[in-house]
Amino acid sequence: MAGSSKITIAIAQVNAVIGDFARNRELIRLRTTQAKEAGAQLVVFPELSLCGYPPMDLLDHRTFVEENLRNIRRLQQNLPEGIAVMVGYVDASPTAGGKALQNCVAVVSDGAILFRQAKRLLPTYDVFDEARYFEPARKSSVFTLSGIRIGVAICEDIWWETEPAPGTRYPVDPVRDLVDGGADLIVAPSASPFFTGKLATRRRLVQKIGRTNAVPAIYVNMVGANDSLIFDGHSFACDATGAIVHQSPGFVEDLALMTVEPAADHLSLSGGVLDDTDQSPEEETRQALVLGIRDYLAKTGFTRVHLGLSGGIDSAVVAVLATEAAGRENVRVFLMPSTYSSAGSVDDSRVLCENLGIDATILPITPAFEAFLETLSEVFAGREPNVAEENIQARIRGTLLMAFSNKTGSLTLTTGNKSELAVGYATMYGDMAGGLAVIGDLFKTEVYALARHINREREIIPEAILTKAPSAELRPDQQDEDSLPPYDQLDRILRHYLVESQTYTEIVAGGHEAEVVRRVLRLVGRAEYKRRQAPPVLKVSPRAFGTGRRIPIARSIYEESL
Amino acid sequence: MAGSSKITIAIAQVNAVIGDFARNRELIRLRTTQAKEAGAQLVVFPELSLCGYPPMDLLDHRTFVEENLRNIRRLQQNLPEGIAVMVGYVDASPTAGGKALQNCVAVVSDGAILFRQAKRLLPTYDVFDEARYFEPARKSSVFTLSGIRIGVAICEDIWWETEPAPGTRYPVDPVRDLVDGGADLIVAPSASPFFTGKLATRRRLVQKIGRTNAVPAIYVNMVGANDSLIFDGHSFACDATGAIVHQSPGFVEDLALMTVEPAADHLSLSGGVLDDTDQSPEEETRQALVLGIRDYLAKTGFTRVHLGLSGGIDSAVVAVLATEAAGRENVRVFLMPSTYSSAGSVDDSRVLCENLGIDATILPITPAFEAFLETLSEVFAGREPNVAEENIQARIRGTLLMAFSNKTGSLTLTTGNKSELAVGYATMYGDMAGGLAVIGDLFKTEVYALARHINREREIIPEAILTKAPSAELRPDQQDEDSLPPYDQLDRILRHYLVESQTYTEIVAGGHEAEVVRRVLRLVGRAEYKRRQAPPVLKVSPRAFGTGRRIPIARSIYEESL
Repeated sequence: MAGSSKITIAIAQVNAVIGDFARNRELIRLRTTQAKEAGAQLVVFPELSLCGYPPMDLLDHRTFVEENLRNIRRLQQNLPEGIAVMVGYVDASPTAGGKALQNCVAVVSDGAILFRQAKRLLPTYDVFDEARYFEPARKSSVFTLSGIRIGVAICEDIWWETEPAPGTRYPVDPVRDLVDGGADLIVAPSASPFFTGKLATRRRLVQKIGRTNAVPAIYVNMVGANDSLIFDGHSFACDATGAIVHQSPGFVEDLALMTVEPAADHLSLSGGVLDDTDQSPEEETRQALVLGIRDYLAKTGFTRVHLGLSGGIDSAVVAVLATEAAGRENVRVFLMPSTYSSAGSVDDSRVLCENLGIDATILPITPAFEAFLETLSEVFAGREPNVAEENIQARIRGTLLMAFSNKTGSLTLTTGNKSELAVGYATMYGDMAGGLAVIGDLFKTEVYALARHINREREIIPEAILTKAPSAELRPDQQDEDSLPPYDQLDRILRHYLVESQTYTEIVAGGHEAEVVRRVLRLVGRAEYKRRQAPPVLKVSPRAFGTGRRIPIARSIYEESL
Repeated sequence: MAGSSKITIAIAQVNAVIGDFARNRELIRLRTTQAKEAGAQLVVFPELSLCGYPPMDLLDHRTFVEENLRNIRRLQQNLPEGIAVMVGYVDASPTAGGKALQNCVAVVSDGAILFRQAKRLLPTYDVFDEARYFEPARKSSVFTLSGIRIGVAICEDIWWETEPAPGTRYPVDPVRDLVDGGADLIVAPSASPFFTGKLATRRRLVQKIGRTNAVPAIYVNMVGANDSLIFDGHSFACDATGAIVHQSPGFVEDLALMTVEPAADHLSLSGGVLDDTDQSPEEETRQALVLGIRDYLAKTGFTRVHLGLSGGIDSAVVAVLATEAAGRENVRVFLMPSTYSSAGSVDDSRVLCENLGIDATILPITPAFEAFLETLSEVFAGREPNVAEENIQARIRGTLLMAFSNKTGSLTLTTGNKSELAVGYATMYGDMAGGLAVIGDLFKTEVYALARHINREREIIPEAILTKAPSAELRPDQQDEDSLPPYDQLDRILRHYLVESQTYTEIVAGGHEAEVVRRVLRLVGRAEYKRRQAPPVLKVSPRAFGTGRRIPIARSIYEESL
């Protein structure tokens, strides 16, 4: 620490838009100016903050990579002087072999690039495809600012000790290398997508880094949602004893300042603030989903949303979240009763709309349903009623919702939950029709928990919606649990299988009836073709349906042979 | 070559089903028995022939990996003696760090595993995600059979000198290592998906390997389709001068025998046969798509298919392909005229059905359309007719086709082409509704070329269908080229952008009008949300829509800023 002096570091928790270089650059310039005015000598932005994360196959577009490099040069010209700026961007790989690009961080200072570090551990599992695009850096180095030696670990680089996929271990520990290389301070620019409870894991990891190596560590996360992924922010810092000395809020942009100065045999970190927002799983989930809807709208150019209200719990919860995300004046719901809909369903929906202050319109589906049955009468002649008639009703609803979207430019939200998506209890082009599956990563029991949380202060969702038996109301007296195991049991089996990757044998050993487990796994396997055509699902669990789970359709459902 | 003697090698070009271990094992046993009876000492199966390719995230299921290992042990017990069997399977990685699995080949002989080689170059681009699952082997070794030293290069291992993604190069050459390690013969078990003209590339690569190193090489490819990917077989062998001495047919299973024996200073390879089937791009495409439909049906348990016939070229071509794939008795088409449909459309469709000998049913969409307009009359009041009315008609058709599927268990085929998918000239849940997008990887101009090829001997598709102007017939006198550039121009721009990865600047420099290019690229960018919900597209080009092209929806269309 010889020769080092006190510096102020700003954490710039920002919301970047993928591919909107001009906007992201301006955001970086603005936050840098604010940080400088607040006295910072260094401001840290999240991973790939210049181009947005995840850019995915836009990285195959040379224009995209070149725009990103052009904008790094513009930042060099336009950033205020007297402050170092750590920003994530994409750069060319310096090695001859391997992938052409690297996931990089540059430190821009007074018009020059003072330092550059590429990411070493490339997540390639779940929703992550970084080995598809990037060449890993082979080594980590340290740069010096006002005498303080700073090591940069980009996102996954701090996750060395975890098991990113079953049985898999990273062969190198970038943080170890940084500390061995003399780092007094670790800075971790990240784009770490949310799932419920993930902040605690991140904090444990970084605290252990601080404690084990007696270095303070600053974790700067992206905030904002892109398609399925919700980046929760929640940046934080811990001191050289591993104590958390700063916690940024979640789900909003934030600029925080901390002071780093030499102490006895390490750097001390001070001046942070501890956000003490409710961190219950339900509140985290609620905030995440609201941000997921809001950013999907903002980043795809929509203002208004609409959905079908069935009188059930799922659509009620989505209506509440949509109202918070878009504002009541931008939400419209449609009640689309069938012959089999209970009177209670419509009444309950009306009360909910009054509570939320949103417009509701009734669109009966019977006339279109009768027209379809008439058109199909010869084709259907002599065949028993089956799922076809149920699905026609669901698809009429889907067509009505999409017609409103096409007519008015409002986005259709789907209301299916993860339990239904898992077992195929959903109609393609029917209730699955829409642009965003808001609660597609919540099991039915989690939807109930979220509904109760929403009602924690006053009854927003009418109690009748929470207590009635779930039903698709597509046949007389239909109830979900006539054809599915009780949701409590179903969800536990699904969680074991889908999220915890338990095998059939392990699930049965855990106390579930073999026949039921076999049936559930078979349903999951057979519904793959439906999920392939589902809209993006907002991810709030460690394993969601969508880009993070890739299962062939044409295959043997080998679980059946168990 | 000292001490080596003549051996007979069999190429077993088989069609494995993903996850159907019992079936794949029995297929391997059967072909091994046939190869032995024909006098072979070695039989070579394709990459991952025991578990099927690509297994994707089934590799995260421990049951899947264990079943695969259990079945390798069963093969050891059940295979005939006196013949070595080279089979692809998944094994545990021997290294402590990195991914837990490897993409392996084992040589099973008389109940023992004689040799094991893991794949070294893991394709991680386009449709390939192998770095997501596998740890690469660090070295290649050679095994000896009857004195002949055989080196195994698994699929991508022979593609060292190519550029798998723009600017990317593999850092090692596994074939070089095998030759340096003393290999007299290279065997390449592969699962290489088809695109038009790919066989020529594979042959050039392998011929160069033979010629450069003076070793014969045997390339054994998977045959059969899994979801979007069509494996074309087309196994072949070249001698130590690089001359092709064997060519298996494409798109069918095959068992071929070749003799390897010591010659002057290298091994000679003889006894192969040269398949001389028509290899025109159109004929290859036709056979690929027929196999793609047939295997999707067989591997998902469907027998029958149906589709909507519009009177246009796209649905006509799909009807022809479906009839060949499923048999005329298993194909049913629906004519779903609207008020705007021309009389010619229905007549032309009827002639096509007579030519194919398939059943056609007329389902008018006007009654359902009127019911929808009536239901929506208040919602639509005061708003101009727009795309909403067109899409309702398309969605009525989608609902009718899906109703037939739900009622009878027949698979709905979609008929959209790549040009339409590219610019978003397709209706989600309407003409995009179905299980498989048969010609979703053919540009409109390629659909015409395929139609002319289909008619090369006799007029199967009525000439009127080939000559009329393309129209969606959803508005009075609507023609595609009213809202799109002429297909000839559109398709060239799209090919430059999507397949050849040219930039906006390059496409304009190639002679296209800037304003048109800008408009087309913008349309492509904005239609991403539609493609995300499209059914699997049969891939017949180097870059298809689907799992091989991953673009964020919520983003800035940065091409606009050009």
